Amino acid sequence: MPTALILLAAGKGTRMNSELPKVLHPLAQAPLLWHALRCGQTFGAEKQIVVTGHGADAVEASARDFAEDIDTVVQAEQLGTGHAAAQAMPALDGFEGDAMVLFGDTPFVRTETLQAMTEARARHDVVVLGFEAADPGRYGRLVMDGDDLQAIVEFKDASDEERAITLCNSGVIAADAGVLRALLGDLSNDNAAGEYYLTEVVGLARARGLSAGVVRCDEAETLGINSRPELAAAEAIFQATARAQAAADGVTLMAPDTVHFAFDTVLGRDAVVEPNVVFGPGVTVESGATIRAFSHLEGCHVARGAIVGPYARLRPGAELEENVRIGNFVEVKNATLAEGAKVNHLSYIGDASVGAATNVGAGTITCNYDGVFKHRTEIGANAFIGSNTMLVAPVTIGDAAMTASGSVITADVPDGALAVGRARQETKAGLAVRMFDRLRALKAKRNKEG
Amino acid sequence: MPTALILLAAGKGTRMNSELPKVLHPLAQAPLLWHALRCGQTFGAEKQIVVTGHGADAVEASARDFAEDIDTVVQAEQLGTGHAAAQAMPALDGFEGDAMVLFGDTPFVRTETLQAMTEARARHDVVVLGFEAADPGRYGRLVMDGDDLQAIVEFKDASDEERAITLCNSGVIAADAGVLRALLGDLSNDNAAGEYYLTEVVGLARARGLSAGVVRCDEAETLGINSRPELAAAEAIFQATARAQAAADGVTLMAPDTVHFAFDTVLGRDAVVEPNVVFGPGVTVESGATIRAFSHLEGCHVARGAIVGPYARLRPGAELEENVRIGNFVEVKNATLAEGAKVNHLSYIGDASVGAATNVGAGTITCNYDGVFKHRTEIGANAFIGSNTMLVAPVTIGDAAMTASGSVITADVPDGALAVGRARQETKAGLAVRMFDRLRALKAKRNKEG
Amino acid sequence: MPTALILLAAGKGTRMNSELPKVLHPLAQAPLLWHALRCGQTFGAEKQIVVTGHGADAVEASARDFAEDIDTVVQAEQLGTGHAAAQAMPALDGFEGDAMVLFGDTPFVRTETLQAMTEARARHDVVVLGFEAADPGRYGRLVMDGDDLQAIVEFKDASDEERAITLCNSGVIAADAGVLRALLGDLSNDNAAGEYYLTEVVGLARARGLSAGVVRCDEAETLGINSRPELAAAEAIFQATARAQAAADGVTLMAPDTVHFAFDTVLGRDAVVEPNVVFGPGVTVESGATIRAFSHLEGCHVARGAIVGPYARLRPGAELEENVRIGNFVEVKNATLAEGAKVNHLSYIGDASVGAATNVGAGTITCNYDGVFKHRTEIGANAFIGSNTMLVAPVTIGDAAMTASGSVITADVPDGALAVGRARQETKAGLAVRMFDRLRALKAKRNKEG
Repeated sequence: MPTALILLAAGKGTRMNSELPKVLHPLAQAPLLWHALRCGQTFGAEKQIVVTGHGADAVEASARDFAEDIDTVVQAEQLGTGHAAAQAMPALDGFEGDAMVLFGDTPFVRTETLQAMTEARARHDVVVLGFEAADPGRYGRLVMDGDDLQAIVEFKDASDEERAITLCNSGVIAADAGVLRALLGDLSNDNAAGEYYLTEVVGLARARGLSAGVVRCDEAETLGINSRPELAAAEAIFQATARAQAAADGVTLMAPDTVHFAFDTVLGRDAVVEPNVVFGPGVTVESGATIRAFSHLEGCHVARGAIVGPYARLRPGAELEENVRIGNFVEVKNATLAEGAKVNHLSYIGDASVGAATNVGAGTITCNYDGVFKHRTEIGANAFIGSNTMLVAPVTIGDAAMTASGSVITADVPDGALAVGRARQETKAGLAVRMFDRLRALKAKRNKEG
Repeated sequence: MPTALILLAAGKGTRMNSELPKVLHPLAQAPLLWHALRCGQTFGAEKQIVVTGHGADAVEASARDFAEDIDTVVQAEQLGTGHAAAQAMPALDGFEGDAMVLFGDTPFVRTETLQAMTEARARHDVVVLGFEAADPGRYGRLVMDGDDLQAIVEFKDASDEERAITLCNSGVIAADAGVLRALLGDLSNDNAAGEYYLTEVVGLARARGLSAGVVRCDEAETLGINSRPELAAAEAIFQATARAQAAADGVTLMAPDTVHFAFDTVLGRDAVVEPNVVFGPGVTVESGATIRAFSHLEGCHVARGAIVGPYARLRPGAELEENVRIGNFVEVKNATLAEGAKVNHLSYIGDASVGAATNVGAGTITCNYDGVFKHRTEIGANAFIGSNTMLVAPVTIGDAAMTASGSVITADVPDGALAVGRARQETKAGLAVRMFDRLRALKAKRNKEG
Repeated sequence: MPTALILLAAGKGTRMNSELPKVLHPLAQAPLLWHALRCGQTFGAEKQIVVTGHGADAVEASARDFAEDIDTVVQAEQLGTGHAAAQAMPALDGFEGDAMVLFGDTPFVRTETLQAMTEARARHDVVVLGFEAADPGRYGRLVMDGDDLQAIVEFKDASDEERAITLCNSGVIAADAGVLRALLGDLSNDNAAGEYYLTEVVGLARARGLSAGVVRCDEAETLGINSRPELAAAEAIFQATARAQAAADGVTLMAPDTVHFAFDTVLGRDAVVEPNVVFGPGVTVESGATIRAFSHLEGCHVARGAIVGPYARLRPGAELEENVRIGNFVEVKNATLAEGAKVNHLSYIGDASVGAATNVGAGTITCNYDGVFKHRTEIGANAFIGSNTMLVAPVTIGDAAMTASGSVITADVPDGALAVGRARQETKAGLAVRMFDRLRALKAKRNKEG
């Protein structure tokens, strides 16, 4: 059955103490919102509709950034969760299938849980996601009669008997889209807060003779983020889970607690990660590659046998083929390094390709920016780029070509050629001593005057 | 009422196993002593007198480093806390007001606590700072009669009933300076250790018919540092508190446990701090600035919208205006970067100013040191410094001026001018191949001989 | 009594989920195996014999890497611990003394424990290493009669009474080499698994009328590594122990949890280590030296008063004499820096010597590699190497010599001489403005067409 997901993401998140809308705060290097969107994507949702409100433009832009086909609707006034969900209904005109309401600030709901809800819809008209709470506190309670959900009772309205129930309401709900639309239309805001509550659709459904049921998930999945400490706790949970998963996958983490994963980091079996490594979004490291200490990777691919770092920075578009070596204080951006190429020290390789087995000397810079345009540098295979070579792009260095150290290369270098662009050394006997004597005398004089 | 603080800082700290006097060991990037001095400064103490002993010269220098007007007196022999406090009396000749005795190795006493002690002096002649101990152990016990402190009983002298008391003595004490002077004069060293104990002034006061009272603080405030594990624990407490405070202030810390604060770090709301950042003393980061991973900042200011790092090192005197970008492997020292200036890669900018919207290319170095003197580099606005430009200071680059990559700039460059200082490229066909062939043949020969 | 150690290291370690043999996984920057070998070395074992199996070649190579005189024997089929130990017997032909069987995946056994086993051999023919288990679980139980070990009972065979025993079997065993050989020869594989169990030698010994005894060690010493989480836990234990030991030794660790030690790191009293420092193998830091944040050291020596980092990388063969300063983004490899030498910024110093009090400017590179050979750079004392100097090795710079910034130095520079190898600056009025105007016009045109 096709399913449309409605993600509620209109809240301000006052307790975050931030200009940034709550759902855009980062968890594992992605906006909170993306975690929910990814879950929906993996689940195979037909449509995902994000209900925006506070910071609507920024939230909409972030959603589109995740995927072009995400729908967004604006909830102009924050009149409750039921009202928020109702804003998504026009976007579902003509849609046949289920609708499921989720929360943009709840990043840990699992795909399997959404699947379980879809399956439970075969048995119930309305399905609510519940969890056994270790400490039910002020959560709404789910009152069951066998498999049937009889009512969701808010804590403040609950009897002592009901407060003893530990099965609690996560707020996530699923129903046929048409049914949900009808139920949302019946909601009233006749309560103390003057808000429309999504949870009331269960009572309305039962009043119409529809059945309601519950799918249970781990309490951990329902963790919502409302403050920075909660966000920090969620980040800690994410990282602990990712580190344990990496170990189970056969990754060698020398100091797991010092490795920071992004939401989508992929590390192969027997990849080695030394202490203090940060993975930004979009990184794939193959089996048997090594990421040394103090490295920072984003949007890049490291093939097997490659060794990166320490202190290597791989930026988006860095593509390292097998057995490439990137050493210390080296930045690589939008560049492909072919098998066995080496850039070991203090270099910037941007908008470039480097051929197989080529050695790039210390201090080499691809001068890719002329102040207005960016240009490419192409280096062939088996080439030798001398230390401190400036490669003024656009420029091409041929196979087995060489540049002399300290050269500024502005013209293409053919295969097998040597390019030199530097002045000849002159040595002046005794001049260093005379210069220092003069400087020191000057200093002595100033000190005396001073 | 004017108050003079007497800081006892004469101890060697044998358990530190160090040549460094105990109060000079660093906590949050400042000597322990400074934490007490800062508390006194915020409190608004009229005078602060540090009683030095072991390593007196170094402790005195550190105290003066904190503020010119700190007094120091030397306790030549370590004859107890009462004797130490007595050494400060000559420095209080003619002083009218209260004297309070504190400890240089107790960094967490709060300003509010000192204020509470001052207020309590309205009700009592002598005021002692006490705390409810979770585990009173061998602390001295405060025996109360209603609001009156009757006695401080050392653990070894205490009855079972007294040992059951959980209100313990922190050692901090306040009284009118003249009264304190008189009481210290009455102290005797007729005890097993042959020392003069400060705590005995309470008994002496009461014997004179004076009243004594207690101000209670959190036990955490009274934490004293006597060993490296205790110092490490104090550092952990400081960092945890600073991280929580930053989150409460609306700072985005992606991995709070990996961010190290100094005693005086200031971060604005919605500043973003990525993992593995170290703040040295004297750093201010404005709202909405971003400090990326693996950055190290000391004595600098980062304005809103600026992005720093990863792997950026900002040293004292680095002043980054709005929207400046400092990238990877870049060091900035004693330099101002105007709005929108960029130094993105592998550069050293020292003793310099960089104008608005100027782009400094990769590998640029301000050659500020001639072996004897340091000189300044001034770069205008909208300039373009080509990669690997050496700016041999003193030198001035004009607005909208440009340097060619690989140039050594020794003379001023006027507004709008282009400066080039590099050799022309020569390309020698086939020479790289011949050179490599020769080297490889040589190697083969050596291997054969070897 | 001479003692031969037999290290069982044939297991695959299936639960590691790795191509790498289990005993080669790193703990504290050394293969697990090395920890056992080091213990044996410190103990003064006459011989160490490693029994290899899975990945035999790699394990053998690693053992030889540790010390040339390690013996290895291959257990072709994994037929149990008794069978593994028996493979070592031919290597003990003619050996007179004790043999002790240990495990390559048990890194924490202490030298003192091996000594205690040797001493216990004076009282017993066979000595087993036992430990009081906090949770005995499924460990084999040691059934004692006074000082005599009566039997080792496997959990599955144990009575309720025996299961109540908390003294457990570590598997480590010692006996006269000849006796052990005889007992191993008597082992049978008549059991469910069809394996030869080393533990059965105790029963066989007693059947021959020999006595067996037990030495007790801490349970922590017997920790065996079978999975990546166990390895991570062992690493955490190692690091916590090393950090505590350093503090006890008087080392100043500003953030102990962020400092990573290798198995053999040596830090002097009052050495200061800032946050985020990684020590690879073979590092010695003398008293009073400072290692600043984000530094990475391997195979190097830092003398007293030297200051390293932040962001310094010292590689094998870096030898820093007193008061040397190595600054940010500087790599030093196989190079000696004499007293007071400074390399403060963005440099690569490899295969070199730098004389006393010499200042090496920012961006300096020793061009030590010509694509085939590595060459040395020798720099004298009191020299001044200008920023961005390329030192094309082999090359020698004399005492008190100087190079101009931006120079490529290909010929030796005599004492006191100044070497310059750079082009003269030309400044072209207005050209920068014209160039930018042209580029911007081009961009505008392209955008229009685009």
